[in-house]
Amino acid sequence: MGSWVFFDVDDVLYNATLLKRMARENAVLAMVEAGLPVDFETALKTLLSIVAEKGEDYPRHFDDTLRALGLKVDPRVVAAGVVAYHDTKRAFLKPLPRVFQTLMSLREDGYLLALSSPGVPVKEWEKVIRLGLHHFFERAWFGEPDEPRLERAVRELEISPESAVYVTARPEAVDAAKSVGLLTVRIRSGGSASLDSTVGPDEEVLWAWQAGEAVRSLLPKR
Amino acid sequence: MGSWVFFDVDDVLYNATLLKRMARENAVLAMVEAGLPVDFETALKTLLSIVAEKGEDYPRHFDDTLRALGLKVDPRVVAAGVVAYHDTKRAFLKPLPRVFQTLMSLREDGYLLALSSPGVPVKEWEKVIRLGLHHFFERAWFGEPDEPRLERAVRELEISPESAVYVTARPEAVDAAKSVGLLTVRIRSGGSASLDSTVGPDEEVLWAWQAGEAVRSLLPKR
Repeated sequence: MGSWVFFDVDDVLYNATLLKRMARENAVLAMVEAGLPVDFETALKTLLSIVAEKGEDYPRHFDDTLRALGLKVDPRVVAAGVVAYHDTKRAFLKPLPRVFQTLMSLREDGYLLALSSPGVPVKEWEKVIRLGLHHFFERAWFGEPDEPRLERAVRELEISPESAVYVTARPEAVDAAKSVGLLTVRIRSGGSASLDSTVGPDEEVLWAWQAGEAVRSLLPKR
Repeated sequence: MGSWVFFDVDDVLYNATLLKRMARENAVLAMVEAGLPVDFETALKTLLSIVAEKGEDYPRHFDDTLRALGLKVDPRVVAAGVVAYHDTKRAFLKPLPRVFQTLMSLREDGYLLALSSPGVPVKEWEKVIRLGLHHFFERAWFGEPDEPRLERAVRELEISPESAVYVTARPEAVDAAKSVGLLTVRIRSGGSASLDSTVGPDEEVLWAWQAGEAVRSLLPKR
């Protein structure tokens, strides 16, 4: 039997940070085009401050942007932003360079691959399906904070945690995985690249496509 | 070293027959919507007769359809058809069921995979890239008739033809591959499903996802 490797989704399988930035820029462009009476730079800055204040998952970023600009909420302008945001995500959601080959070669070497991320299950699957990578993964655990989610995966697979690796770009996920006893590979890119975990990861790489070698060095092919 | 398996593209990796039908139906719908003064059924029947007469790769199907209907060629109507045709192909170009898993498991068993089809090289790559399957294939031979193309592949790989398999849905490609000396797996689906090759294939299956077992039976894993 092979060893399990768990993969986080954002900034591991695809460049979530870049995609969000592009989607927000295109949304603002479309809102200006639809009649928002503010220049692009001002509108974008306002949107980004709303995102910073309300959090990534708040569902009313565009409405609040209009309010923050002192404007009435025009549904047509908001809708133009929503459409452009989703069109951009749809058009540009692509795997990071060499991620396909990394997953393929880990499978060829007998590793068992799983997904694990704290996001909403349907949304996480939607991303992985759009990326065209879904068939590589035998199992998936989504939708809980890192520690209970990873504990559940270890329990359900009936493995010892130190025989499995978690690959993630998020420092808080490294800490959770270490506390569960998993081996960890930290990818130092994306929105959290400058932040450190409290406990150091077992291996750290700059790019997702280097994760394959890091996994092999921690958990040699059996 | 593993054994080589060559894959045709149309009706092997994706359902080319169904996709073309959907794209043409959507194109006619868009042309009617853009002002073509003919009902959907008549316009579609005329388009299909033009395709049958001029061949699949003729670049002026929509212009000729308007002419055949006794109308002036309206660039706006033709453009509406072209846009809908390409949008449909873009939205619905997906691998046939279990093709991803078939390719993945052949690779996991050590087979070496290649592409081989007579189409225009850039267009064939465009399809395989949009399907998200391109990284599975180590080599590709496109753009020549079946026999010289397959001969060239065998020569360039320096293999004996009877140590490699060609998987195709086209009866004429079975004959070409047999004359080159390759093992053949015929997939009996798509537009040519009812046609027979002159020389029988080594294995015949109904669906692309059964090709993996057929390949393994002809060319056991080494």
